[in-house]
Amino acid sequence: MSVKNAFYAQSGGVTAVINASACGVIETARKHPDKIGKIFAGNNGILGALREELIDTSLETAEDIAALKHTPSGAFGSCRYKLASPLQDIAPYRRLIDVFRAHDIGYFFYNGGGDSQDTAHKVSLLSKEMGYPITCIGIPKTVDNDLPVTDNCPGFGSVAKYVAVSIREASFDVASMCENSTKVFLLEVMGRNAGWVAAAGGLASQNHGEAPHIILFPEVPFDQQRFLEKVQKSVQDHGYCSIVVSEGVRTDSGELLTHSTSFDAFGHIQLGGIVPTIARMIKHELGYKYHWAVADYLQRSARHIASATDVEQAYAVGKAAVEFAMQGKNAVMPAIVRESNHPYKWSIGEAALADVANIEQKIPRDFITEDGFGITESCREYLLPLIQGEDYPPFRDGMPYYVVLQNNLVEKKIHDPSAAW
Amino acid sequence: MSVKNAFYAQSGGVTAVINASACGVIETARKHPDKIGKIFAGNNGILGALREELIDTSLETAEDIAALKHTPSGAFGSCRYKLASPLQDIAPYRRLIDVFRAHDIGYFFYNGGGDSQDTAHKVSLLSKEMGYPITCIGIPKTVDNDLPVTDNCPGFGSVAKYVAVSIREASFDVASMCENSTKVFLLEVMGRNAGWVAAAGGLASQNHGEAPHIILFPEVPFDQQRFLEKVQKSVQDHGYCSIVVSEGVRTDSGELLTHSTSFDAFGHIQLGGIVPTIARMIKHELGYKYHWAVADYLQRSARHIASATDVEQAYAVGKAAVEFAMQGKNAVMPAIVRESNHPYKWSIGEAALADVANIEQKIPRDFITEDGFGITESCREYLLPLIQGEDYPPFRDGMPYYVVLQNNLVEKKIHDPSAAW
Repeated sequence: MSVKNAFYAQSGGVTAVINASACGVIETARKHPDKIGKIFAGNNGILGALREELIDTSLETAEDIAALKHTPSGAFGSCRYKLASPLQDIAPYRRLIDVFRAHDIGYFFYNGGGDSQDTAHKVSLLSKEMGYPITCIGIPKTVDNDLPVTDNCPGFGSVAKYVAVSIREASFDVASMCENSTKVFLLEVMGRNAGWVAAAGGLASQNHGEAPHIILFPEVPFDQQRFLEKVQKSVQDHGYCSIVVSEGVRTDSGELLTHSTSFDAFGHIQLGGIVPTIARMIKHELGYKYHWAVADYLQRSARHIASATDVEQAYAVGKAAVEFAMQGKNAVMPAIVRESNHPYKWSIGEAALADVANIEQKIPRDFITEDGFGITESCREYLLPLIQGEDYPPFRDGMPYYVVLQNNLVEKKIHDPSAAW
Repeated sequence: MSVKNAFYAQSGGVTAVINASACGVIETARKHPDKIGKIFAGNNGILGALREELIDTSLETAEDIAALKHTPSGAFGSCRYKLASPLQDIAPYRRLIDVFRAHDIGYFFYNGGGDSQDTAHKVSLLSKEMGYPITCIGIPKTVDNDLPVTDNCPGFGSVAKYVAVSIREASFDVASMCENSTKVFLLEVMGRNAGWVAAAGGLASQNHGEAPHIILFPEVPFDQQRFLEKVQKSVQDHGYCSIVVSEGVRTDSGELLTHSTSFDAFGHIQLGGIVPTIARMIKHELGYKYHWAVADYLQRSARHIASATDVEQAYAVGKAAVEFAMQGKNAVMPAIVRESNHPYKWSIGEAALADVANIEQKIPRDFITEDGFGITESCREYLLPLIQGEDYPPFRDGMPYYVVLQNNLVEKKIHDPSAAW
């Protein structure tokens, strides 16, 4: 097999550990000079390939590449760009393959969620049809933890740890204040369709009655009456109520609560963010003083409190992606396989991209308590290993040291036919 | 001097390190059995004294007391309760002194902000007048960093570190996404009257052009036009704009932006939280996609990323408070004195409660850049030492271990004359 260059791209929302996967890819690829020439990275994800903006990672020092392992965000830039079906528009696929051909790229490593695995799968099929077969390997990444086949997704363990730690800390705070001040605290977390991130908040509650007292999942239709009763009971029993709210909470009819107007009776119009709305509703109906936080990007970029297990797995899937390619595999994705819970053991397995693409893994019903407001022991058993270990970044002068790469682009080889990308 | 009992209370909003001060008080007091008998803690702050709900800390193990040093929140409960002037209502002061007398309490350690120092000062004066003189020592605490005399306030360094780390991490995230997605990120932080916490966000920007690009201070009237121009320029120059917003941002006329209706022209009504409003304004005027986070209690309870300097100082002021009392001092507060910046050296000085009470220390104008959107080198020089060092709590099974004390109440000795408290 001749030497070919490789192309690596980051896709969609970034995480605290997607750069650890990049580190795994680059460090491993650098060990195979007999098969892999240069490793190019897409400037801002797949857009970098479409625009022929290829970052030459060979110009980065080994030290800086190693520092990716402790740097959150996407070091080469990411983007939200979903390629349409080739049946609708073949142009971007042609363009990708043209650029890959022009730069002698034989390997495509695509680090993302379900959409990205789908794209990688299609590029694999189409490149063969177009006479320039490319080895396409997906690398799992999503804080939403919603990919099938793999036991869990790199990126999730760290956001899970952040949410569990944060709700524990804030709950300690409100417990101190509840005698004559704040009685209800709400934390809004990510997860538009799947409640994995919200579920992770449940790890803060190790004994009966501990906070959080309520979790609102996208999978469980919001029932205002039952919810308010539970809030009231928590305040009566514990003096306060601590709540984790998934941004994806929906009404019975499947409408996102953030978009609903069901609280208009209170005269309040929403500004985005579901927790201000729910907080006002609690105040209006029960009269409790509240505080709320919206974690937003803080939760997925919080490398300072990343899960060591997550960092290790993120690196491992990047490394395995290159090893799969070296073994001649194609259209596959390294998947995390859970070998045992006690002690927690995992290994890297192999998933066909065709089986991963575009399938969203929601929380099984038996992971949510019967009343719909908490997690079960099975869920805890599943989640707990994923937040194990702390992997603190190095600090300099009181602040975490995160690397910013040079990101030098290689010279373009083909005339850009249009400004379409 | 005979043996007297001591009373310790936590006041107002709690912090990541107020328990470290409690630890300093209790561990030090336990070393003086010749002068200090039992150390009682107020159940929910000063309310515990008024209600005669005294926690017997002698029933807590040395191990649990030591664990306070790494536990956020107020371990004995806090409250928001400001005693009126004795000229208006002498009753609560009488009651306090009655309770202190009934439980043979000779030392009152009050851990809080400006109001609490004022209360401690008044109790010191009145107890003498009432024939039961009590040694009153204040212990500084406030995330707002707004006490005078002391160089800085325990609690602030940790929230400063949290905010600086969080805005750096979230800014790395948005920098990855800005090519075709989010262009503006806003983080709302505490500080209703003083912008110290917001200023700390500026520590994330070590070189020109680094995030955050804008800080909105309560001390600088909000100028919509100039703000929008700066946002636009940041996006043009850096591809994105990262903003730290103090909850206390005000209009020219001193009105809190959260309460203003100046954006009603957009048809949006506010729900509390200033960043959703500012975010909408940016979207409306400049068209940029945005994300926002509200840190709320997360910032002041984030013991997992506490400043080691802050923890050390919090403990030191607790320890010094007891030592002051042992030296026969009264109506004073241990203050942090900055000895030098390079290297950073500090010591514990002494402030008269009369000089501390009810004075709010705002940011000096020369700590804010001329354009009003950033911090100066003098400000950085002041802030940087306060976030030095990491003091991670112990972790068990992936989660920080925070202690919950027994908090056993001692038997009441006086008939409660009313249910007023």
